[in-house]
Amino acid sequence: MIDIIALRRELHQYPELGFTEFRTATKVVLMLTALGYRVTYGKDAIDDMSRRGLPQPEVLEDAYQRAIREGADPAIVEHMRGGFTAVVAELEGIQEGPTTAFRFDMDALPIRESEMNKHTPQAGDFRSTHEGIMHACAHDGHTSIGLALAERLSDRQFAGKVRLLFQPAEEGVRGAYAMVEKGMLEQVDRLFCMHLGTDVPSGHVKGASAGFLATTKLEAHFTGVSSHAGASPEEGRNALLGAATAMLNIHALPRFSTADTRINVGILEGGTGANIIAEHARMVIETRSTKEETNLELERRVRQILEHSAAMHELSVTIEIVGGAIPIRCDMELAALAVKQAEGISGIRHAEAISDGAALGSEDASYMIKRVQEQGGLATYMIVGSDLPAPHHHPEFDIDEAVLAPAVEWLERLARNVQ
Amino acid sequence: MIDIIALRRELHQYPELGFTEFRTATKVVLMLTALGYRVTYGKDAIDDMSRRGLPQPEVLEDAYQRAIREGADPAIVEHMRGGFTAVVAELEGIQEGPTTAFRFDMDALPIRESEMNKHTPQAGDFRSTHEGIMHACAHDGHTSIGLALAERLSDRQFAGKVRLLFQPAEEGVRGAYAMVEKGMLEQVDRLFCMHLGTDVPSGHVKGASAGFLATTKLEAHFTGVSSHAGASPEEGRNALLGAATAMLNIHALPRFSTADTRINVGILEGGTGANIIAEHARMVIETRSTKEETNLELERRVRQILEHSAAMHELSVTIEIVGGAIPIRCDMELAALAVKQAEGISGIRHAEAISDGAALGSEDASYMIKRVQEQGGLATYMIVGSDLPAPHHHPEFDIDEAVLAPAVEWLERLARNVQ
Amino acid sequence: MIDIIALRRELHQYPELGFTEFRTATKVVLMLTALGYRVTYGKDAIDDMSRRGLPQPEVLEDAYQRAIREGADPAIVEHMRGGFTAVVAELEGIQEGPTTAFRFDMDALPIRESEMNKHTPQAGDFRSTHEGIMHACAHDGHTSIGLALAERLSDRQFAGKVRLLFQPAEEGVRGAYAMVEKGMLEQVDRLFCMHLGTDVPSGHVKGASAGFLATTKLEAHFTGVSSHAGASPEEGRNALLGAATAMLNIHALPRFSTADTRINVGILEGGTGANIIAEHARMVIETRSTKEETNLELERRVRQILEHSAAMHELSVTIEIVGGAIPIRCDMELAALAVKQAEGISGIRHAEAISDGAALGSEDASYMIKRVQEQGGLATYMIVGSDLPAPHHHPEFDIDEAVLAPAVEWLERLARNVQ
Amino acid sequence: MIDIIALRRELHQYPELGFTEFRTATKVVLMLTALGYRVTYGKDAIDDMSRRGLPQPEVLEDAYQRAIREGADPAIVEHMRGGFTAVVAELEGIQEGPTTAFRFDMDALPIRESEMNKHTPQAGDFRSTHEGIMHACAHDGHTSIGLALAERLSDRQFAGKVRLLFQPAEEGVRGAYAMVEKGMLEQVDRLFCMHLGTDVPSGHVKGASAGFLATTKLEAHFTGVSSHAGASPEEGRNALLGAATAMLNIHALPRFSTADTRINVGILEGGTGANIIAEHARMVIETRSTKEETNLELERRVRQILEHSAAMHELSVTIEIVGGAIPIRCDMELAALAVKQAEGISGIRHAEAISDGAALGSEDASYMIKRVQEQGGLATYMIVGSDLPAPHHHPEFDIDEAVLAPAVEWLERLARNVQ
Repeated sequence: MIDIIALRRELHQYPELGFTEFRTATKVVLMLTALGYRVTYGKDAIDDMSRRGLPQPEVLEDAYQRAIREGADPAIVEHMRGGFTAVVAELEGIQEGPTTAFRFDMDALPIRESEMNKHTPQAGDFRSTHEGIMHACAHDGHTSIGLALAERLSDRQFAGKVRLLFQPAEEGVRGAYAMVEKGMLEQVDRLFCMHLGTDVPSGHVKGASAGFLATTKLEAHFTGVSSHAGASPEEGRNALLGAATAMLNIHALPRFSTADTRINVGILEGGTGANIIAEHARMVIETRSTKEETNLELERRVRQILEHSAAMHELSVTIEIVGGAIPIRCDMELAALAVKQAEGISGIRHAEAISDGAALGSEDASYMIKRVQEQGGLATYMIVGSDLPAPHHHPEFDIDEAVLAPAVEWLERLARNVQ
Repeated sequence: MIDIIALRRELHQYPELGFTEFRTATKVVLMLTALGYRVTYGKDAIDDMSRRGLPQPEVLEDAYQRAIREGADPAIVEHMRGGFTAVVAELEGIQEGPTTAFRFDMDALPIRESEMNKHTPQAGDFRSTHEGIMHACAHDGHTSIGLALAERLSDRQFAGKVRLLFQPAEEGVRGAYAMVEKGMLEQVDRLFCMHLGTDVPSGHVKGASAGFLATTKLEAHFTGVSSHAGASPEEGRNALLGAATAMLNIHALPRFSTADTRINVGILEGGTGANIIAEHARMVIETRSTKEETNLELERRVRQILEHSAAMHELSVTIEIVGGAIPIRCDMELAALAVKQAEGISGIRHAEAISDGAALGSEDASYMIKRVQEQGGLATYMIVGSDLPAPHHHPEFDIDEAVLAPAVEWLERLARNVQ
Repeated sequence: MIDIIALRRELHQYPELGFTEFRTATKVVLMLTALGYRVTYGKDAIDDMSRRGLPQPEVLEDAYQRAIREGADPAIVEHMRGGFTAVVAELEGIQEGPTTAFRFDMDALPIRESEMNKHTPQAGDFRSTHEGIMHACAHDGHTSIGLALAERLSDRQFAGKVRLLFQPAEEGVRGAYAMVEKGMLEQVDRLFCMHLGTDVPSGHVKGASAGFLATTKLEAHFTGVSSHAGASPEEGRNALLGAATAMLNIHALPRFSTADTRINVGILEGGTGANIIAEHARMVIETRSTKEETNLELERRVRQILEHSAAMHELSVTIEIVGGAIPIRCDMELAALAVKQAEGISGIRHAEAISDGAALGSEDASYMIKRVQEQGGLATYMIVGSDLPAPHHHPEFDIDEAVLAPAVEWLERLARNVQ
Repeated sequence: MIDIIALRRELHQYPELGFTEFRTATKVVLMLTALGYRVTYGKDAIDDMSRRGLPQPEVLEDAYQRAIREGADPAIVEHMRGGFTAVVAELEGIQEGPTTAFRFDMDALPIRESEMNKHTPQAGDFRSTHEGIMHACAHDGHTSIGLALAERLSDRQFAGKVRLLFQPAEEGVRGAYAMVEKGMLEQVDRLFCMHLGTDVPSGHVKGASAGFLATTKLEAHFTGVSSHAGASPEEGRNALLGAATAMLNIHALPRFSTADTRINVGILEGGTGANIIAEHARMVIETRSTKEETNLELERRVRQILEHSAAMHELSVTIEIVGGAIPIRCDMELAALAVKQAEGISGIRHAEAISDGAALGSEDASYMIKRVQEQGGLATYMIVGSDLPAPHHHPEFDIDEAVLAPAVEWLERLARNVQ
């Protein structure tokens, strides 16, 4: 039987960034196959062109080679080369019934993990071995729960089908959309998504969540003409002037009376030297809103500002979507059933239907939830509380491993009992 | 015989802004007609659509009514109604010969004249009676010189023809272009333009000038959509955001290695109240350069910035040329003749061909000079020095009236002797 | 007995802007005095230095002279000269009891009233005689209600005292604060404020209102150094560059997760001519928030941007508060009593405790309400519905005069019955 | 005898960036020592704290290790570790006399050298072996000329002393100032600086140069506070907003009527992710002017903009000078002597006193020239023409090696004959 804590610690040591989860996903494929699941992965599990914010080819290749060096099964990982790191597994129960899906995310963050002794992974000797990359958002725990759940359900003592979705690149809200586009949510009647932590303490669970924002992440590239800043400044077309103008004007977009909004230019970089009129500049921008249509309107206005900031200085500009999510509307009927199943589980002291609306940022599971609901199914986004020594995305983030086993039991009950 | 000092003082008391020189121009028409000149004025002397930076109709009408109240001949001034305040007078000499033209400007500035006792017009009781308007650039002197010259030449003791051009709206470089467009410089073989002062002391004259810059004056109007800044900010299209963006980016245009340049947004105004998204904004911009083509390139870039600053915020924008001038290239052959004629005039101690290049701003006589040169004629822009108690355009500006008579004599000699 | 419709129409014809309500306030003083009230006005009713957004002295004086021309009692209006147009009247009832206050605002808006025949004031021949000024926010109705109420209560058939507050300059949220500072709300136990219209239909009333935002209105003046844009641009210190920088950066202030916010630069103007580096610029800014402390933080950040935008360009800047309000928290206990008193009044079909939270903008009655609550009193802001042909602040705005009489009766009942 | 072409090709293959000329400078030390010169280098030849734009420690160390791998004498290079790559050599002639100095620069550029066959270093098999670094400004030629000159003069057949200055980090105008500060120009009576190429054809030389601009290169680091752009944007202090504001306002600095100026923000970069308020931003800026005091005024204004752009957004900012130069005023008396000495040298067809003023950018030899002149010595900046297949700083730049020998002969004559 899987030792879930050992499994989580092993994953914790080999964190991989979005679309480079070659080692992790290969391990998932091997374990699920061994448990008897029908496993789909690589280009069969994710739509090539719908992947957003894909890393540069050389980054993908470096990570691929690293995974091989670290023992990833070459026959399996080969199908994932180039960033096709999604895995979907399905198993039929002994009886007829609906299809119940569970979604887990696998990627880590570009954060250097703490080396302080009070940080358990450091003290316990399972700190990240990939310097500068860290599981600081509990996805190592999510993946472990998914695998442990798979083991429990391998007895097929349930009605209908169980489908397990292991998603790449949740950070930056980039991977889910491409799995939906590949059809991985077709025929799903019930979808349970979940997250550890999020300010909910150990022993508490929530059947649903509110407060997720619609978001779009855009990357813009300005291209002008370089020239010598002393000898012929007038021959240049200054990409940084265009970018700085866009920076200020994007932030100056109005508040909306129709919905809560957010706007940020998170990265701006360009130019090569003091004496050169900058030829290139790059910006990364995000919009958010509590309403999907307001987010789309913000995105439209951002694009307009980018285009005219460029044209003003005779620059060209390309704009690419590198991430996105929509708001989540959980089915409260399903959440109520989930809360009920949590009763009596050892380690769960308190279960309630929904958190009271604190914003949790954005989640691309939103695309999966919407797809299931469009098909007439039900979906929810649940929280398994965990005491945390430091916030999500912090170098000292860590989960309370005691909550992993109860989480597996909760999901097991949902798979077996919720029809 | 005209008392030139009394005449200048009378004009000084009734200063009129560009295109509203109704009283002044009417007086010019009357005097020239009385002297036997063939006088053209009103719509016959200036092209309607080529006038730049024309005041609002109500401003023109108010000034027109004021001129009538102040005694302007109604039969004459009626032809100038609406801002047609140019006057051209011609007289044939007793012999055949070339056409020699002299140009004088008539308009004043929107400056409140000093009331200090040390200011001669105050002490001498000929301060401006039009509060807030002042002859602070010596055009009262120029017009007086022109009229005194007309009187001298009314004996027709010269060869060829003399043409006297009395121009409106030199300030803002607005009026000359429209007189050129109306054909007022056709058949001119020699053109003498002149200015009093300009850092040249009393007793000194210059046969030519260097350093005039090409310039364009633009007025832009941004129009957006107003909305309540509290209740529905997103429904507004903020004209002030467009204008502020243009302001910064216009000033950020590059220096040119090919020529000296200047750029200025001199006026920016918009909005009606704290709680309203501003629907309108107005900007007045000028570009300058030592080279005409560089000035045109600057103007092109300014227009581009205006258009895209507007489009960025979904505003419309209109752009109008409200003034302009080109660089002046004096014919040094003509300047040398002028210097020679200055010899021996009482009150002129020193004459030289050209000032040594100090920038003098811009002058729309440049269009007249260029037109004459295009026709194969010669032209120059001369300086009659005058000690000044305060700089041009200053509330205490005043001319040294002692230089007026020598100036008239110099021009008279040019008319009679330069062939 | 007062004909309230005739009174309202008379006031409608003579609209006066904030702090220039000389004619209106004089009339109020005369009528209240005649009814036996103890009337306080002029500098006794409003604190000089606390008045915000006071018009320029010449504007105040022009309006003062106009009021005299239009028949304002010279002996009374003299005490209001310079913008002291607040009136407070008090009357003691026949019995001991608490002090109940009612607040009415008197000022009009800088809007040109419609001349369309469908506009009742045009058709009924009581359109504004002050061109460009209009009662487009129902304050003519409010003042009329206040005077009619005064007449009803002049029988002194109530317990305690009644205090009637006639406030200047509610538009721009400028006048109430200075009346509070003068002590006009001391000893008030119950305060009823009211507004006509606000999207509530005729026949409906509300006992309280939600959704008012805290707001601050700021006026900033930048002062630099002018210089000739062609001859010596480097000697200038460009006030418009500072203002444009502030414009963009103020709008770029972040959204707050702690409260809803608004920000607007509603006016920006500066500069005198194309060829002059602008010496002066003026900006009018407003901040708003659902929370007072968030609004104060926004104001702090705006000031910081203004100061450093100025210092960046070696400008000086002065910043003045020209208006302000805080959120309103109505006492629901008092609102419930008010709703109860509305029962059975002819012309009121529906009364409820509170409107459901639609934002109504800002109101400086908020300072009066807060002051009463700080003293342990109760206060509320009530709505008397009125069908409207056009929105508030629109040239075709008009009230349904049929709601005036029921409003008076409602307030009368409150004065007599609410203890 | 030194094969100057072979020497230049060897240096060309091992280009090193400013302050990392470990291999080159070590070679220079060894050769000069072998020729009998008294050689000063390392911390004895350059002032530690006056070095501008020093690379990061790890960059210096990597380059140091590379030099050792490539055979740099460990005993010598050790003294240069950390970027002390200046070399000064002195030799006494057989007679008493003045001290004559020659300055050569050794550093290369961060440019990837062309691999096209028409590019001689590629065809001739001496292309750069340091990928991304290239001698594209002829400093390999300059260093070779210096060493060949040293060999010629090792016979000591001259009066006085010869001092040879081999300078690091001329690119970015960073190294010369620190050699001056270390006293390396003390007691110099005559200083000859030189450059190959610069639009002067092969066979032509110039005794002096005009048109160098004063310049300052600044690097600014903004530091704010990062926060989550969705959850708590108001807690962030956005370094990119400060940097973008500075970008626009620095470019918007006025033109000067007193001198020609240039301004450029060549690099702007900051931020780490779409959903993070940017904590850091970096800018690299340069100012230039034909006058030193105008450049200093520009630098002062840039600093002011940087400081207030930061303070506006509650950021801190550090500003560091990373390069600088002043204008060069050549002593025409010395230039005339130099022109005379060029007569009759094989390979030099044409010599003239000065190039006609085309701007050449900036040069930090200017500090050396100024120091010599302050001591009462004479100095000039000479040009040895060279036909070029591509402009300076271009991937296909190359020198005409035929001009190297005549250049050596010219300098030799100057050392032996100019007293």
